[in-house]
Amino acid sequence: MSYEAPLKEMQFVLKELADINAIAQHPGFEDATPDMVEAILKEAGKLASLVIEPLNNIGDQQGSRLENGVVVNPDGFKEAYQQFVENGWPGLHQPTEFDGQGLPFLMQSAVSEMWNASNMAFALCPMLTAGAIEAINAHGSDEIKKTYLPKMVSGEWTGTMNLTEPQAGSDLSAVRTQATKEGDHYLIKGSKIFITWGDHEMTDNIAHLVLARLPDAPEGVKGISLFIVPKYLINEDGSLGERNDAKAVSLEHKLGIHASPTCVMSFGDETGAVGYLIGEENNGLSCMFTMMNHARLEVGMEGVGLSEGAYQHALAYAKDRTQGYSPGSEGRVSIIHHADVRRMLMQMKAFTEAGRALAYVAAGAHDHAYQSTDEKVADFQRRRMDLLTPIVKAWCTEVAQEVTSLGVQVHGGMGFIEETGAAQYMRDARIITIYEGTTGIQAGDLIGRKVLRDKGATVSELIAELNEFETTLKAQSGDDFAIMSTQFSAALKAVTESTKWVLEKGMETPHSAGAASVNYLMLMGTVLGGWLMAKSALAAQREIDAGSTDEFFKTKILTARFYAEHILPRSEAYATTVQSGVGAIMDLSIENF
Amino acid sequence: MSYEAPLKEMQFVLKELADINAIAQHPGFEDATPDMVEAILKEAGKLASLVIEPLNNIGDQQGSRLENGVVVNPDGFKEAYQQFVENGWPGLHQPTEFDGQGLPFLMQSAVSEMWNASNMAFALCPMLTAGAIEAINAHGSDEIKKTYLPKMVSGEWTGTMNLTEPQAGSDLSAVRTQATKEGDHYLIKGSKIFITWGDHEMTDNIAHLVLARLPDAPEGVKGISLFIVPKYLINEDGSLGERNDAKAVSLEHKLGIHASPTCVMSFGDETGAVGYLIGEENNGLSCMFTMMNHARLEVGMEGVGLSEGAYQHALAYAKDRTQGYSPGSEGRVSIIHHADVRRMLMQMKAFTEAGRALAYVAAGAHDHAYQSTDEKVADFQRRRMDLLTPIVKAWCTEVAQEVTSLGVQVHGGMGFIEETGAAQYMRDARIITIYEGTTGIQAGDLIGRKVLRDKGATVSELIAELNEFETTLKAQSGDDFAIMSTQFSAALKAVTESTKWVLEKGMETPHSAGAASVNYLMLMGTVLGGWLMAKSALAAQREIDAGSTDEFFKTKILTARFYAEHILPRSEAYATTVQSGVGAIMDLSIENF
Repeated sequence: MSYEAPLKEMQFVLKELADINAIAQHPGFEDATPDMVEAILKEAGKLASLVIEPLNNIGDQQGSRLENGVVVNPDGFKEAYQQFVENGWPGLHQPTEFDGQGLPFLMQSAVSEMWNASNMAFALCPMLTAGAIEAINAHGSDEIKKTYLPKMVSGEWTGTMNLTEPQAGSDLSAVRTQATKEGDHYLIKGSKIFITWGDHEMTDNIAHLVLARLPDAPEGVKGISLFIVPKYLINEDGSLGERNDAKAVSLEHKLGIHASPTCVMSFGDETGAVGYLIGEENNGLSCMFTMMNHARLEVGMEGVGLSEGAYQHALAYAKDRTQGYSPGSEGRVSIIHHADVRRMLMQMKAFTEAGRALAYVAAGAHDHAYQSTDEKVADFQRRRMDLLTPIVKAWCTEVAQEVTSLGVQVHGGMGFIEETGAAQYMRDARIITIYEGTTGIQAGDLIGRKVLRDKGATVSELIAELNEFETTLKAQSGDDFAIMSTQFSAALKAVTESTKWVLEKGMETPHSAGAASVNYLMLMGTVLGGWLMAKSALAAQREIDAGSTDEFFKTKILTARFYAEHILPRSEAYATTVQSGVGAIMDLSIENF
Repeated sequence: MSYEAPLKEMQFVLKELADINAIAQHPGFEDATPDMVEAILKEAGKLASLVIEPLNNIGDQQGSRLENGVVVNPDGFKEAYQQFVENGWPGLHQPTEFDGQGLPFLMQSAVSEMWNASNMAFALCPMLTAGAIEAINAHGSDEIKKTYLPKMVSGEWTGTMNLTEPQAGSDLSAVRTQATKEGDHYLIKGSKIFITWGDHEMTDNIAHLVLARLPDAPEGVKGISLFIVPKYLINEDGSLGERNDAKAVSLEHKLGIHASPTCVMSFGDETGAVGYLIGEENNGLSCMFTMMNHARLEVGMEGVGLSEGAYQHALAYAKDRTQGYSPGSEGRVSIIHHADVRRMLMQMKAFTEAGRALAYVAAGAHDHAYQSTDEKVADFQRRRMDLLTPIVKAWCTEVAQEVTSLGVQVHGGMGFIEETGAAQYMRDARIITIYEGTTGIQAGDLIGRKVLRDKGATVSELIAELNEFETTLKAQSGDDFAIMSTQFSAALKAVTESTKWVLEKGMETPHSAGAASVNYLMLMGTVLGGWLMAKSALAAQREIDAGSTDEFFKTKILTARFYAEHILPRSEAYATTVQSGVGAIMDLSIENF
């Protein structure tokens, strides 16, 4: 099995759905010409197939391990990372000011998909670094920026995010790590857990961003500050100095992403770890929030990448494995001839394409929002991005659970054998609905901050667009479109009524919104996926009408039809559940569970 | 975490849904008095909690391994198995003729649930042995029965099923292992894969049942014969003789059930393995079919057991883990106070109870079918059992995927850490939708052999019963029941229309039935689960009306309401998909995937 980036599909989505050509008009994005986009995707695809994917199984089997205080990565990871750096991938979307290429986030999302599809454990290292760069760039002093960003943008150094403590997971207000001021710096003392790529030997230095509390800080989230704590202190001339008092003391033994060292980090075991303040004191949480949109969209992309990887893996097996007979075929057939295997593959394919469409559209909204010179456009796109972000994060990752599990199922008994590789996608995927805010947290964000807070203004704007689209879809002739239209209308009704319910009843009891939230989010994801699939089908039909005989377009229409027949009908089930509200959920006393 | 068998719930389901008291009236089952049932469940629960469950993590971590040709089991397994044997558990449902206790299969199912909930890898060993006993008892010669069955019924020896070969998985017609006659026995040569507990040192001997082909056998399934191949040959006086030429040559490295050795077996590497024919030559497949109902119901029970285990595990964590604030509570709360966590737990609980109800009802139908002296009753119950078997197997195991994955989600980041134990349920569960016939195979069996073959007679009988029940449910007053009634009626309509579609259109194109089959099966499972949950709620209401203040009954009603609000609505989505038939599934040419 070798992963091949679906270049044609990616280009289609970038152009037809995510508006890459309009994005390239924004100042700063002039380089994102169609030729450049094509060339970048092609090069990234090569690296993913030839260098990164071949390490995926090795990484899973060997894992990263802690030996004598040093994190040892699986064979080949350091070399692959060096090639990744030499080719300039860490800087793709980073500011030109710090020697990045300044290309759209949308482009970053497309190449991220490839890194995740080929080796998610590997992809996490630059992904976390990009998050750290963003926080430093938005809130760091000029000196800190000058010291760290060029090295991090080039990938010579990596970055980590140190948020979680044993008692502070989803609830960061419980953070206890301490920081005390000492001259121009702070001394950090405390323990952090679940620190992704918290230590490794792939680079000379690592910049840890650490949430901690000053001695007299207020309780709760308003008393948290953000610090940068380098693994090696940096001399005035920029050369590396002493080892800082910050180290990985153990690695977690995890279900998946074995190659990614998940560290327990200890800061200040001895004298205290030297750290420097990022942003204002006690304003650390809002510094973290800066990068949250990015990070959540990136995790959604992990879902898309893993889904694509699992799909390609299962497809290759289904074409190869001979078993049983099929109506209309002579002799034994490869299992892709069996209708139920075909159904599973179509389900994987349709979900993956819908997830990709939604994630790219959200990434495009991000670029418009930050880069458009038209304030109205920027405002509109920022609202859209804010609304879509929790949906992309949660829905694309929940979908990945289903897709990667189907990938195992397509393999039959072989899927349960680790050497086959199908199970790894499923194991790796199991973290993505959890970290960077669980599905429940995303759903709470969606229903609380994105729907209820502005009294439905943003979501109504989107629903209005869906209504317009319904008219367009209805007008398209042909059986495939008639089916899409029927199912889309039913789904749109489901989302409209459920949104009305949320706005009217979401605050009825203290738990109404919380009880309904995940089903509401899944409903939104399902319907938006159906919208974008149908929109893709219309674009494909235009190409066919214009004379194209490329099978890609016919395939796109059939996949959209499958989505309408097999996935969109779930919308009404989600809607019924949303509208049952808190129902029986909170009535059972805890002892009676 | 320590598993506790849900004794009250089990007794409730046995009595109210699965008809244990009527089953105890059948000749041979007189011992299954209410007192005896209670005592058996209690004792089994103790063994599960105190002896079997404590080995679940150890088994996962250590796994079984092959060392110098010998399978070494995890620490404690041999001792636990000996205690299991000393307490007489292997013989619970086995014929009294061979020193079994002859209790109903329904009782066996209930205790199986406990073995699976506490340690599925362990439970597989006696489960496979029971399958072998059944095949030998139904088709073996008197001499073979006399030689093997007392030892297997007592558990002194175990049994295995050797079906699969690399090229023959779901399609057994491709079996190539050879058998040649030599005097009173046969010499077997060939390789078998995926042989559960194919070798171990927990007992003195192992009886392998092996499918093989005689030299002049016809092609395909009509040329397969069944043989018994002991690990150690048996002398005329019953003592153990030479080592037979049958051995485990390697173990698979699997996603889950690590303690269960999944062997590649080699028969006849040297002189040929000595085997004895079971049943007629070339009739091996029908001998295997004998035990298939049992085995499929048992695997469904694995789904129920794992779901219960995962639920208890997640519940304990949700009660213990403090994180965040909740409306109406002061200070930080345990996460079970959060509405979305509560929703996940209710989903796990409702699914588990519905699966249990369905599996026990099917097991009860089995007992009626085999043991009733009233031929009409026996016929009716055999049809019912045949219809329910693929649904129990596939639906309860698919449900277990969702439940065990939710179990991980409830744990948040800790769910991804192996030491927590939540991920093991999910990993162990991933095989059960695959072995003993995949979900696709079960769905094909349901739609082809159980629905289309008798032109809907059996399924219509069941739907008629659901219609009667609808009337009863409607007549029950109270809000909870009104909700159940509304959702049940919608679900019943979905199943009625989909069944009509299957009967009318299922043969329309060669792939219609195959394309619709899994969604049809999932629809049936969902609706039957809703039926039995509502039936349970009515029984609970009767107890309340009769003056009971036991919270168990109130809880049952709320859980049934939750099922109606959160799970039953899926019925219509499945129905829409079923009725879209082959749709876009087969239109895409293989190259265009």
